[in-house]
This record gives sequence, C-alpha cells and structure tokens, in this order.
Amino acid sequence: MNIIKSTKVLFLYKFMQRYASSQALATDLKSIVGNDNVATSTAVREQHSHDESYHPGHKPDVVVFAQSTDHVSKIVKYCASKRVPVIPFGTGTGVEGGVTAPQGGVCLDLSRMDKVLSINAEDFDCTVQAGVTRNALNTYIRDTGLQFPIDPGANASLGGMCATSASGTMAVRYGTMRENVMNLEVVLADGSIIKTAGLKGRSRKTSSGYNLTNLFVGQEGTLGIITEATLKLHAIPEAVLAAVAPFKDLQGAVNATVAIMQSGLPVARIEFLDENMVDACNRFSKLNLDIAPTLFLEFHGSNSNIEAQGQIAEETCKSYECLQFAFATDVDKRAELWKARHNAWYAAQALKPGSKGYSTDVCVPISALSGIVTFAKDELKRLNLLGPIVGHVGDGNFHVFVIVDPTNPKEIELVHQYSMALAKEALRVSGTVTGEHGIGVGKKKLLIDEFGAAGINTMKAIKQALDPMNILNPGKVL
Amino acid sequence: MNIIKSTKVLFLYKFMQRYASSQALATDLKSIVGNDNVATSTAVREQHSHDESYHPGHKPDVVVFAQSTDHVSKIVKYCASKRVPVIPFGTGTGVEGGVTAPQGGVCLDLSRMDKVLSINAEDFDCTVQAGVTRNALNTYIRDTGLQFPIDPGANASLGGMCATSASGTMAVRYGTMRENVMNLEVVLADGSIIKTAGLKGRSRKTSSGYNLTNLFVGQEGTLGIITEATLKLHAIPEAVLAAVAPFKDLQGAVNATVAIMQSGLPVARIEFLDENMVDACNRFSKLNLDIAPTLFLEFHGSNSNIEAQGQIAEETCKSYECLQFAFATDVDKRAELWKARHNAWYAAQALKPGSKGYSTDVCVPISALSGIVTFAKDELKRLNLLGPIVGHVGDGNFHVFVIVDPTNPKEIELVHQYSMALAKEALRVSGTVTGEHGIGVGKKKLLIDEFGAAGINTMKAIKQALDPMNILNPGKVL
Repeated sequence: MNIIKSTKVLFLYKFMQRYASSQALATDLKSIVGNDNVATSTAVREQHSHDESYHPGHKPDVVVFAQSTDHVSKIVKYCASKRVPVIPFGTGTGVEGGVTAPQGGVCLDLSRMDKVLSINAEDFDCTVQAGVTRNALNTYIRDTGLQFPIDPGANASLGGMCATSASGTMAVRYGTMRENVMNLEVVLADGSIIKTAGLKGRSRKTSSGYNLTNLFVGQEGTLGIITEATLKLHAIPEAVLAAVAPFKDLQGAVNATVAIMQSGLPVARIEFLDENMVDACNRFSKLNLDIAPTLFLEFHGSNSNIEAQGQIAEETCKSYECLQFAFATDVDKRAELWKARHNAWYAAQALKPGSKGYSTDVCVPISALSGIVTFAKDELKRLNLLGPIVGHVGDGNFHVFVIVDPTNPKEIELVHQYSMALAKEALRVSGTVTGEHGIGVGKKKLLIDEFGAAGINTMKAIKQALDPMNILNPGKVL
Repeated sequence: MNIIKSTKVLFLYKFMQRYASSQALATDLKSIVGNDNVATSTAVREQHSHDESYHPGHKPDVVVFAQSTDHVSKIVKYCASKRVPVIPFGTGTGVEGGVTAPQGGVCLDLSRMDKVLSINAEDFDCTVQAGVTRNALNTYIRDTGLQFPIDPGANASLGGMCATSASGTMAVRYGTMRENVMNLEVVLADGSIIKTAGLKGRSRKTSSGYNLTNLFVGQEGTLGIITEATLKLHAIPEAVLAAVAPFKDLQGAVNATVAIMQSGLPVARIEFLDENMVDACNRFSKLNLDIAPTLFLEFHGSNSNIEAQGQIAEETCKSYECLQFAFATDVDKRAELWKARHNAWYAAQALKPGSKGYSTDVCVPISALSGIVTFAKDELKRLNLLGPIVGHVGDGNFHVFVIVDPTNPKEIELVHQYSMALAKEALRVSGTVTGEHGIGVGKKKLLIDEFGAAGINTMKAIKQALDPMNILNPGKVL
C-alpha cells in the first residue's frame, strides 16, 4: 500500500514539476514571440500531439506559432539553451507519427508563416514561407499559367512536404519534392539560419558545394526547421485527359502499368485501386465504378498530342484485357474521379466506423510490382485483415490501407506484423520501406534493415554533427 | 652563403625523407593490392597530378590502381591509420583541379574497376563500378534500346561524374547526375562501406532516412570514395532531329532560347556558341558554319512528333530573327555537329598554340541569361582577353573558355579577376558560381560568397563528422 501511495505521490510530484516547467517555458516563449503566439491549453496541445495515423499521440508542453524566420531562430536558440525538444508542425497530415512529442517540449507550428514571397513566372519558380499549403500556392498563381503539381493527396504545407520528401499521384510525371525543391531556408539547432542552395540561389543546376538542399528534404525536422522554400513551377498543360480502366484481375492492371511506363509514354498520373478500394470509393464518394482492380490515368499535353497519348494507353490496357477503357474528358467528371481517389484514405476508414487506417508505403522496381502486390493481398488473407490497396504504380509505389481498431492491441500487433512482412518483402526485391511517407516513429527499425549498421552510423554522424544536443524532433527517423 | 647552403641541405633532407616515406608507403600498399597495382614512377605520378585545366598540378607520392571495393576499403583504412591523404582519380577530365595532390599522399585510380555489374532493362536502371566510362556503358547496353544520356563532353568515368555532379548538353531534357543516380556504394574515411539508398535499393522513389545519395553526388571525393553507382537509363528515342540556327546577335539567340524553354518544348539539347566559338570550331573541326552567335538544337521523340517539335523551335528562332534555321536530319551530319561542339574546349585552346583554357562555369535563372552573357562579353573586351563562349543555355548554364598562357602570371591574374567578376555577377542575379564543374581548388573562395558563413559551417560540420582526420581529398571544396 505504501509503495503504491509513494508511487502516486512521485507521479503527482513529477506531473507538478513538469507543469511548473511548462508554465515557465510558456512565459519565456511569450516574451519572445508575444502572448498571441503561444498556447498551452489541453485542446491545442492535443490537436498538435498526433498526425492522421494510428500512431499514439504525445502532447507537447507548449505550442508556439511562429510568424517569421526570426521567431523560429529565437525559439530554437531559446530551446537549445534549455535543452528542450522542438517539434516542427505544418498541417499534421503525416502518417508516420512525425509530429508527436514523446519527450514533450515545444511544438513549433509554422502555419502562420503563410506568405508567398515571390513568383518568378519567367523562371518557373517561386519562394514561399513554410506554412503555405499547396492549394494556397496554386490558388495564388492560378493567373500565371503555372502550377505546383506535386500532390500528396492532403492539402499539406509546403514546408512539411519538403521536410518529409512528399510526392503522390503526380510524381510519375513531375518528380517528387526532391526534384522540385531548388533552395531552402533552414534554421539549425543552434538558431543559425542557412540557405541550402546559396544565399539567393535560384538556378536550375548547381554543383557548388555539398547538396544541402536534398539533405534537408526528407530529414523530417530532425536536422533543421525549414522556414522558406524555393520551388519549381510547371506550365499548366494545354489539355488534360483522364481515363478509367477496370481489369479482370490484379496482374492485368499491374502489367499494363509496367508496359505503359516501359513504352516511355509521359503519363501524368497512373493510379491503381484494387477491388476493395474501388468498393470503398463508390460508397464514400457516391460513384458507380465497376468493382474490379482499376487504373485511373491522366494525360497532360497539347491538344494535338493528348489523344495520341490516350490511344496508346488504351491499346496497352486492352492488350492486358481491361474490361473497358472509358475516357473522362469533361472537367467535372475528372474532378469527381480524382476527388474520390484523394479521399481513398477516408473512404477506407469509413468501411469500419471507429477504425483507424494504417498505411503501408513500400516502393519497388517496377519489374517487381506485380509480385509484391500479389504478396500483399495474400498476406492480408492469411492474417484475416481488411486492407484496400491503392498505389502510385507508375513509380512502383503503393499503399495498403489496413483498417484497424485502435483499441484492440491484438489487431494492432497483427497489422504491425503485416507491415513488417511487406516492408521486408520490398527490401528483398530491391525496394524501399517507404516511398513517400517517411520514417517518423513507425519505421525506425526497418531503416536499420534497409541501410545496415554502416549506413545508419553515417546518418547518426550527420545528426550528431548538426544537432549535437538532439533537440530537433527527437525520437524520429533514427 | 651559409644560409643558402643550409636551406639546400634542409630541402634535400626533406626530399629524402619524403622519398623514404613514399617508398615505405608503396611497399605497404603493394602488400595490400599487389605489385602490379602500385606505381611510383614520376611519369605515372605526373599524369595523375593534374586535370585538363590550367590549375597547377601536384604529384601524389604513390598511385594505386584499385581493382575492387575491398581494395578501396583496405587502402583507405591503411591511409587512415597513417593519416595519409587519399585522392580519388577517374579519367582526370575535370577542370577545377579536383585531382591534384597538394599535400601528396595516395592517388586512388579507379579506372580498373570497369565492370558493368547489372543491367535491369525492365526497370531502366543499371549498376556499374566507378571506373566504367559513359561511352563504355553506352556501348555495353546498345542492344537494349536504352542509353545513359548524361554527357559532359569528355568520356568521363561514371564514378567521377557522380562525384562531381556532372551534367552537360543533355541535362536540359534528362537532368543532371543528381536526378539520375539512384544508389551509390561509398567507402568512407574509416574504410567502412555504405550503400546510400539502401543495401539493395533500386526503387524510383524513396523517403527512407536522410538522402545520402545526393550528399555524395557532388562531394568531389571529400566525404567518401564512390566505388559503385546505380544509374537511371533512358529509352533511345525513336527519332532524333538536329538543327543549327545562327543569329544576327547574341540577344536574339539567348532570347530565342528563353522563349523555347518557356514554351515547355521538351528540347533534348540547346547549345549556344558565340561567334568566336563558331570560328574556333570551324577551324578545329573543319566545318563551314556562318560565323555568328549560333544555337545547336536537338529534339528527341517519336517519328510523329519530332517534326512538330522542330517546327515550333524554327518558328520561335525566326521570330527572334535567326539568319537561318537548317535541319540536320542525317546521322553523319548530326554526329559531325555534336563532335565539333564536344571538341569546343580543344578548339578554343587551339586558337593560341601553347595556351591553356580556363573555363568559367556559371549558371543563372533563365531570365537573367541575356544580361549576364552580355556582361561576360563586355568584361572580356575590357580586360582584353580572348574567350569563346559556349553554353548549355536551356539550363541557364554557360562557359567562357578564357585562353591563357600558363607561363604568364600577369595573364593568369587577369583571368582570375575575370572569373571572379563573372561568378559574382552570377550570384548577384540569383545564380551559382558553378553549374557543373564543381568547386575543386579553383572556387573555394566563391563558395563562401555563395553560402555565407552559416552555410559553410554546415558543410564543414558534415565534413568533420564523416572525415574527422581530413584524409579524403584534402584542400578541395572547403
């Protein structure tokens, strides 16, 4: 009894201690960024404790809303002096637990840094603050004839997309963030500010010094806080054509994808949905698609070549026995299709109310795609799990949205087993454990399988060099 | 007199000491890699002391020819134990002095690691040892319908091209090495071996851990020795069309380029040669081109769309008052043109026998191109220097091949002034001090101008973390 009592007292003492230090933290931070930019309410901290995944949330002690790079620099400097963790937060739309605060600390919300700083239409580039979302940017530039096409589905912040090396449906044509970020402003762990591609750099090519830009793309806030990004823009295509092709079986759809990619057709999107995913989309988005393994395709080009592209794709799909190949030429029909595709994550979760989705995210060489998608389906059956499949198959990247009851530890364990098995199969066939979601807290063990000890030690040496006190998003990636 | 004598004695003593330690070094290295793979002759060391530029050469103490990754690992481990510099050497075709050995040490020649390890035609990728040259790879794969198009002009080794982030004439369509390297095997400063994109990784996309691949692309041998590379391959286009368009003036040629790029035309090459360069090419390659600012263009595509591409380019050039627009359809004529373009470096040097070329290498946003090319020409005139201009203008990248008498210090000083002024102008207009040649020994000061103290310190922290004893290509980049 006494032991229990003293444990309780100790817990209460620790809680009070943390509360007191949180209050002191908040007071100090208010003096740096102003009262309106610091929140300690449970509601705000809760909202900043998790992303959209099943990964358990951990609340930060304080949420700070930075308004400028200067704010970020001062906050990080302050946190460094107190050895307090700093966790950057964009829109919270990640899926590997990247924004949780397992050690508490300061959640640095960048959503108020939402200014488009410059548009250089002649050079096809722009510079934005980290909190600008991709939709906000596209709305801002709609009259220039340009677009920022990288589209991970969610309306994520561009800073977050840089930090996680996002990609999505358009990557097969326009590349991932790695290919589209030209320069970053980053606040380092000591509060100093760098530009990764030169103080004013906006050139299309450079071989000047180490490629810091691509070191900070995908570092998930563990090496620095991204405050500004210079991004490539692309011309809005003169013409867009979409098509839907259901197939008799999975292999047909995947093999048609492989053939289309190998033909060199510059397809803008080529998305695979298995029959369960199509069924979920029909229900959630009130569509009437045939319930069969299906490809959604989109072609971008000039009025003169777009039909030729569509025709080649149609011929290819037919040679792999697609059940039909239906063009969606009008804008509304096309928008409806892609909205349904983007809502696939929510559609999958709606299959079982109260459930959470766990999204796997492997990417393999395209020749291994058919084999591993079959493996993914067989494993679902073996473990008796529900998991619609959706994929950016043109890149060899796909997700299984495993539907899980977050209150059932046995089910969570099964999903975990499944995810590990699929990731290891991806590694076996020369793929990667994450094509676009990142490592976060969910895939740290798999990172070791992927890179081996020497590779991990190299990453650790870089982390140690740039963040020796481990205050930047601690507990993530490594 | 006595002072002179004792200086001479001291020099002789130091020379003897270095000679003795070189001999000991060679003996030890022979025991690691075998007698046939170690050279200490003056001729071989001289040949490995310099690249193709005017930068003064410094001989290594020993040249070692590695035959395997295991050799490289053992050599680096040995050198680390003795704190001896290791300078990787591919073909010696660089132009910023990257292979010189200012502190002596071991030149690690990778040319005997010349095996193509795998071709995955279905996945459009291959894995090669570092010493395979780009021509050797293209010859090896010629029956697959695939090509490795990145073409810096010289027949460089692919390991060297990775290390220096090479690009060249085809980058405007196919990207630079940064976009075409999928994975690297690298030997680190302690002899350990990593794979930068996973132990077996060949996926088109990944967001797994830090982007080590692009940290090692462009590090110029200062962070690790690249021993193998997995590279993207591209389909050989069904049809190729080339064209030559001389212009009335510089502005017309540059503005036509800008307009072509902004139209989104997927031009495969678009090269600018000023009138001096055309003159030099005519002499060197026995051509008969009009002596005027000229664009060389190339289009890749299907038989059906290639003429449409050419036509759009022709219309654009005519609207900028090109003097003519001549298509070169037959293979021989095309080969002759591009051979002449590739020999431009030698053609420029042949303008003044006994001279060396100093190639500047700035890259700017395309909207700034016309202004800076004019600046480059005006400065040449002001300093009374001879410098034909040639450029991968589609990327905003161009070179002035300043012709210099390497025995005339005053002229070298002038060239230096010129190069600095041009690089600073590039920075002023948001460009970079090197688009594709790298920093080497030639541009270390400019790197500081480009990145500022915080950026340089970040690079230094990474160097310190990965090569704490500074044995890898010391004195380069930073």
